[in-house]
Amino acid sequence: MVGSSSGEKQPKYQRIADTLKAAIDSGEYRAGDRLPGENDLMDAYGVARMTARQALGVLQSEGIAEARRGAGVFVRDFRPLRRRGIQRLAQGQWGSGRSIWSADIDNRSLLVDQVSVTERGAPEHVARVLGVDPGEPMCVRHRRFVLDGKPVLLSTSYLPAGLVAGTAITREDTGPGGTYARLAEIGAKPVHFREEVRSRMPSGEEGARLELSAGTPVILICRTAFADEGQVVELNEMILDAASYVLEYDFDA
Amino acid sequence: MVGSSSGEKQPKYQRIADTLKAAIDSGEYRAGDRLPGENDLMDAYGVARMTARQALGVLQSEGIAEARRGAGVFVRDFRPLRRRGIQRLAQGQWGSGRSIWSADIDNRSLLVDQVSVTERGAPEHVARVLGVDPGEPMCVRHRRFVLDGKPVLLSTSYLPAGLVAGTAITREDTGPGGTYARLAEIGAKPVHFREEVRSRMPSGEEGARLELSAGTPVILICRTAFADEGQVVELNEMILDAASYVLEYDFDA
Repeated sequence: MVGSSSGEKQPKYQRIADTLKAAIDSGEYRAGDRLPGENDLMDAYGVARMTARQALGVLQSEGIAEARRGAGVFVRDFRPLRRRGIQRLAQGQWGSGRSIWSADIDNRSLLVDQVSVTERGAPEHVARVLGVDPGEPMCVRHRRFVLDGKPVLLSTSYLPAGLVAGTAITREDTGPGGTYARLAEIGAKPVHFREEVRSRMPSGEEGARLELSAGTPVILICRTAFADEGQVVELNEMILDAASYVLEYDFDA
Repeated sequence: MVGSSSGEKQPKYQRIADTLKAAIDSGEYRAGDRLPGENDLMDAYGVARMTARQALGVLQSEGIAEARRGAGVFVRDFRPLRRRGIQRLAQGQWGSGRSIWSADIDNRSLLVDQVSVTERGAPEHVARVLGVDPGEPMCVRHRRFVLDGKPVLLSTSYLPAGLVAGTAITREDTGPGGTYARLAEIGAKPVHFREEVRSRMPSGEEGARLELSAGTPVILICRTAFADEGQVVELNEMILDAASYVLEYDFDA
């Protein structure tokens, strides 16, 4: 979108990085291909090893390429999940017993792990959104989603413990249609959603749990589910591997 | 959302970083406050300078704090723009002559600079979305948005040159209600939008134009505007300073 700047004043490593980027854009190197190594760049451009390393570092820090230990630097295989923010939450989806996730993944292999369901007091920011006192008992659902062997999302849901007591929401397997179908059964059907989207660099622990390579930010989605008359029935905080996702929102003017 | 891991095995710098983060969360240090310096941390924790530096580095790489040259490390003053993706594009907004931006900024001071309007051939990815041949003439509008003195967004719009010829869309000032109001006047009123959201680390040039501090990703929004019968009338590629934005999407189930 923004063209690379050029000119005499650019440092050498930047010019080499731009040349490599252009070669990727043109399809000379494709996703998963190995880029020229430090020795190749030293020979081709007559530069020092540090300059070659810096050039490859630019592509890594921009998330275009990633280093694999002992094997070299490779064009990142960006095959993002397309997450259709609005359609996937349509009642026709979970109302018919399908999981929300099945809308995203086509035929790819999804594993949900690190599942835990606990009761805890509401943290302050959660209490604020749900309109309850901090410390109010919450049903807290943690999950990690792993697609084709790669962790892509960490999810934490908060629901009022009193509201969901005795339902499958308090169990690891929430049953067909998941949490929202169960909420509908107890008269707390979500009719409106708000998603807030941010991005930042991951913490060390987030990076480890999502197996992020260097230079990969996370996308944060905080979703609030509203029942009739505006009652908040769930707050879902998600941390996404930014390299694995495109979020799509479709709407009328 | 994801708690900090603890335990004996954590490196010292990580434990110090966690303590600082807890102090920020508790409000002991607020946005804009200076954090303890390397010397302070060395004294307080009995650690070497490198350990103190690493601890402060963790907060910077997570985007929680930023270094100001010669002055120390400060809690980042995150006062994000709340960009209501759907409401801001409602016809009632631009149809009444207001700019889409006025919905986002409350009473803050907005400057639009680096404006250029040129005619260029459609790049391949643009041609694909607009359903034209690559190289087809496009009206290309570049702009940068600066809020309270801080660049927050780079925008590039592509519109078919033949469609918008002779309208104010080809001029720097598009007039009341902007591009969408002008499109409506020539019978190409946008009735539907699609926004695709991604995140990655900025290129060097993007970082410079947005004046990003280290450890700040960009959010990319690619918006497609559809007129009646699905005709694409505009593709708008935006690059946002992730530290300056919360994107909000509100919709019914």
